[in-house]
Amino acid sequence: MPYRAPVRDFRFMLEHVVAYDQVVATERFADAGHDTVAAILDEAARLNDEKLAPLNRVGDTEGAVLENGVVRTAAGFRDGYAAIAGGGWVGIAGDPAHGGMGLPFTLNVAFNDMISGAALALGLNPLLSQGQIEALETHASDELKALYLPRLNSGDWTGTMNLTEPQAGSDVGALTTRAVPNGDGTYAITGQKIFISWGDHDFGGNVCHLVLARLPDAAPGTRGISLFMVPKFIPDTQGEPGARNALRVVSLEHKMGLHASPTCVMSFEGATGWLVGGENRGMAAMFTMMNNARLQVGVQGIGVAEGAYQHALAYAQERRQGRTPLGEGGGAIIDHADVRRMLIEAKAEIFAARAIALACGVALDMEKATGDPDWAARAALLTPVAKSFGTDVAQKVAGIGIQVHGGMGYIEETGAAQFARDARVLTIYEGTNGIQAMDLVGRKMMDGGEAAYRMFDEGEQVAEIARRTVPDLAEAVWGAAETLRECVEWLVEQDMQERFAGAVPFQSASARVLGAFYHLKAAHAEGGAGPRTALARYYIERLLPEYEAFITQAKAGAAGLYALSAEDLAS
Amino acid sequence: MPYRAPVRDFRFMLEHVVAYDQVVATERFADAGHDTVAAILDEAARLNDEKLAPLNRVGDTEGAVLENGVVRTAAGFRDGYAAIAGGGWVGIAGDPAHGGMGLPFTLNVAFNDMISGAALALGLNPLLSQGQIEALETHASDELKALYLPRLNSGDWTGTMNLTEPQAGSDVGALTTRAVPNGDGTYAITGQKIFISWGDHDFGGNVCHLVLARLPDAAPGTRGISLFMVPKFIPDTQGEPGARNALRVVSLEHKMGLHASPTCVMSFEGATGWLVGGENRGMAAMFTMMNNARLQVGVQGIGVAEGAYQHALAYAQERRQGRTPLGEGGGAIIDHADVRRMLIEAKAEIFAARAIALACGVALDMEKATGDPDWAARAALLTPVAKSFGTDVAQKVAGIGIQVHGGMGYIEETGAAQFARDARVLTIYEGTNGIQAMDLVGRKMMDGGEAAYRMFDEGEQVAEIARRTVPDLAEAVWGAAETLRECVEWLVEQDMQERFAGAVPFQSASARVLGAFYHLKAAHAEGGAGPRTALARYYIERLLPEYEAFITQAKAGAAGLYALSAEDLAS
Repeated sequence: MPYRAPVRDFRFMLEHVVAYDQVVATERFADAGHDTVAAILDEAARLNDEKLAPLNRVGDTEGAVLENGVVRTAAGFRDGYAAIAGGGWVGIAGDPAHGGMGLPFTLNVAFNDMISGAALALGLNPLLSQGQIEALETHASDELKALYLPRLNSGDWTGTMNLTEPQAGSDVGALTTRAVPNGDGTYAITGQKIFISWGDHDFGGNVCHLVLARLPDAAPGTRGISLFMVPKFIPDTQGEPGARNALRVVSLEHKMGLHASPTCVMSFEGATGWLVGGENRGMAAMFTMMNNARLQVGVQGIGVAEGAYQHALAYAQERRQGRTPLGEGGGAIIDHADVRRMLIEAKAEIFAARAIALACGVALDMEKATGDPDWAARAALLTPVAKSFGTDVAQKVAGIGIQVHGGMGYIEETGAAQFARDARVLTIYEGTNGIQAMDLVGRKMMDGGEAAYRMFDEGEQVAEIARRTVPDLAEAVWGAAETLRECVEWLVEQDMQERFAGAVPFQSASARVLGAFYHLKAAHAEGGAGPRTALARYYIERLLPEYEAFITQAKAGAAGLYALSAEDLAS
Repeated sequence: MPYRAPVRDFRFMLEHVVAYDQVVATERFADAGHDTVAAILDEAARLNDEKLAPLNRVGDTEGAVLENGVVRTAAGFRDGYAAIAGGGWVGIAGDPAHGGMGLPFTLNVAFNDMISGAALALGLNPLLSQGQIEALETHASDELKALYLPRLNSGDWTGTMNLTEPQAGSDVGALTTRAVPNGDGTYAITGQKIFISWGDHDFGGNVCHLVLARLPDAAPGTRGISLFMVPKFIPDTQGEPGARNALRVVSLEHKMGLHASPTCVMSFEGATGWLVGGENRGMAAMFTMMNNARLQVGVQGIGVAEGAYQHALAYAQERRQGRTPLGEGGGAIIDHADVRRMLIEAKAEIFAARAIALACGVALDMEKATGDPDWAARAALLTPVAKSFGTDVAQKVAGIGIQVHGGMGYIEETGAAQFARDARVLTIYEGTNGIQAMDLVGRKMMDGGEAAYRMFDEGEQVAEIARRTVPDLAEAVWGAAETLRECVEWLVEQDMQERFAGAVPFQSASARVLGAFYHLKAAHAEGGAGPRTALARYYIERLLPEYEAFITQAKAGAAGLYALSAEDLAS
């Protein structure tokens, strides 16, 4: 079944659930009102439904291949990318001073959601460019900005992130790629990077690598890391791709999924690079790039989940098997109670994850538009939850998608398995979900929980209002928010090891409660009756209660994890 | 890292957790005492560790292929199968009167656990033969028994199950394959079957298909189905494979995993078949085969989970990344709290699922040895829980295995992804886990819950005894058993649609509580201190509490599932 972007859902959520009105009320984004949003969403939906979704399956079967040192992409990908770039979608949130469209990041979130449902592997390409645009806008010199940003915003050139090395994954500080000053303001970059998504392609233009490396005599660990722009072709005086730089793709990884996205081993062999940000300030620049990227990986999960859900729903509406309890639908398996349960659960989870991601986008836009540190703290707090929950939902819903198909789900031609294989990397890249959880209970609680408490206050106010329309649901959400608040109060009193021991369950509890909060808003906006209320009721009555076990796990402590030694685990 | 069969765990569980002593106390299995068991487990471990585990990866990369109408298996598979057959493992639980070893089925469970961890795709082959042996022992004529059983028990011939047709999956009654009497006591079988695992191979001997088909003028639905033995080669008067029967492999499916197991589309074109059991009595015979097969699919899940766990554990002990909180282990990632949490959780889940499966095996053996209907009811009750929980644990632990590997988990060469791809079919075949749940709350509760209540009584007695050693854990398990009992009391008062609406969560709750019961027994057997107690504590303190949300979901009712129409779901 063909993918159809859920435009109606986006509009409802922006209008009623995630307070996008506040964004439009700012001077910076005053032009991005609901009419503009509607037009943009329709245009994005057309591109994704008609042009990009048909590329998803061929991308999986053909994959990207390395031929004579350059990457050849799957059939249709070059045209698909041209349509993305030509529509201005790469630069949707870029600064208009450098050719961006200057729209709210929240709309970029919606676009990324769509493209991830339509063609995840291709959608990863513009996502990486957007992260690079963000990093350059914030940290690059005016000269670098003037040269690179217009070409990245237009999509003529693409961007990559080069962090990982074999010995330096989650531990970025262990990287050893070297950067030696050439004496002319440039640097010679030497080292090997792995897991470089879209490290090369045949879309034309230039491939701009942002590379983390160490200057001679830099401090060990993350304090001695600098960031460099290392383009595949060195721009000439006109800014056109010129001489080939001393870098190459060594090989492509053979992955479980996402076959159409070339995952490169890159070798930098004295390649010419330009410093971005100050010397030894690479991590700060990288974090700019990573925070938005983390949210967007969560959104990739939501998009894949939507794709898998639509695919399974279509099958469930066609496939007949056994007597069903309903006359309606004429015996399709969607009428069997457990099939319907799986589908509703998928839809309820997608709604919750999408609302959290859009709310995070709104917070980022508000931070940008107002400079208010409370909004910055809100965005920072929501980012790990959005990343981990969106990608967890992707695993769950892709699994449901296969299960709804029965035996056909295991057959590759059906397409259900691809969603699961593609989605599997999402809980890992851009910081594993375990790393996200450590960020949530560590760095994001350095304010003593203040940002979290403000969010609970807001949630409880909403619950008070919703008592008028859906009192039982409001009461459940209010109580859950109180329990989660007490858990945060407990958490901020613990040392880091205790926090880390319960970090992932705490993150899951947070997602459950936040998701319930947004479902409650939807039900209230609908007046307490209708399909959105029914969906909210499913989530709040059946899924929300899972938060209690998560909180038990979050508080259970580190000692129990170390009560078995490594030898005990192995015997 | 190489697979190592967990012999120590099996012995501990048989001696202290699942009451295998009762089996040895019967006359039928008096020879299968703990010394015999130890020798058998060691021999099985040697075969699996040394001979079969090395085939797992090559099986995935080469797969089985169809060449000129016959299946060619991956390199080494023919030798691997010969080692299985030569060791007598196919006929381990077969009737000695027909060449079987006559050992308890429980030991077959342990063997299947091992082979599923070592080489799942190959292990599926003897499993199918064993199901066929069981069906023939119970339902075939003496003549068929004498011809087929010795050759199946020896492994010279292999067996398959032919149920599914494109329009008849979960709804077996919709099948249309025809069987027309030839007038000489045989039947002409015509039709197409799909998803036929190991429908052909190059191991030599014969491939014996048990095929469900309809006689002319048979009643519609499951009441009009008969079972036929349809061999690839028609045995000659000496019982040697003779003339080629009129059946062929049309194609192999391109699956997400389990590549080395050929999944065949079979075409029967007037093939000669022999009736097994009475006319129109096919479903009864098929259920004999399916019940053991369902338990064994759960065990496949446990084995794959064990393989994935060992693989991840080895990586976690080698990989260094960042500062860890422990001096011990020298900074390997196993010492990070969340990595350790994932590994302990995997181990705790595997223990619980394995105990349930072995307990189901014990119940089957006791049923066979004593004829006591209470044991039959126990086995029947445990089967859907063992199948669904074992295969759910496989998904979870294979997912953990990838996650522990970080980015490397997504790279196929690492091997972590194969466990997840292979395991994915397990929640589907032999009756989806949703079908298992319907069986659990429907057919298995037709006694008004009596079998369940007997199990709760037993569990609570154990909890009373365990109060002496681990009072807090005993109290938690006792309380959970009481709550689950109340849920059963509620369940048996509901109509089928209400039961089905909560069937899967009820099944999950049952597994959580049963798993806790066996962990408690292990902790008590250890005297309340040591690694098994630490593992039990992890499970009972952190995972058991999840049963409460499952019970909420189980009781939440059907109305909420139908509150959204099919159109609402699609919009």
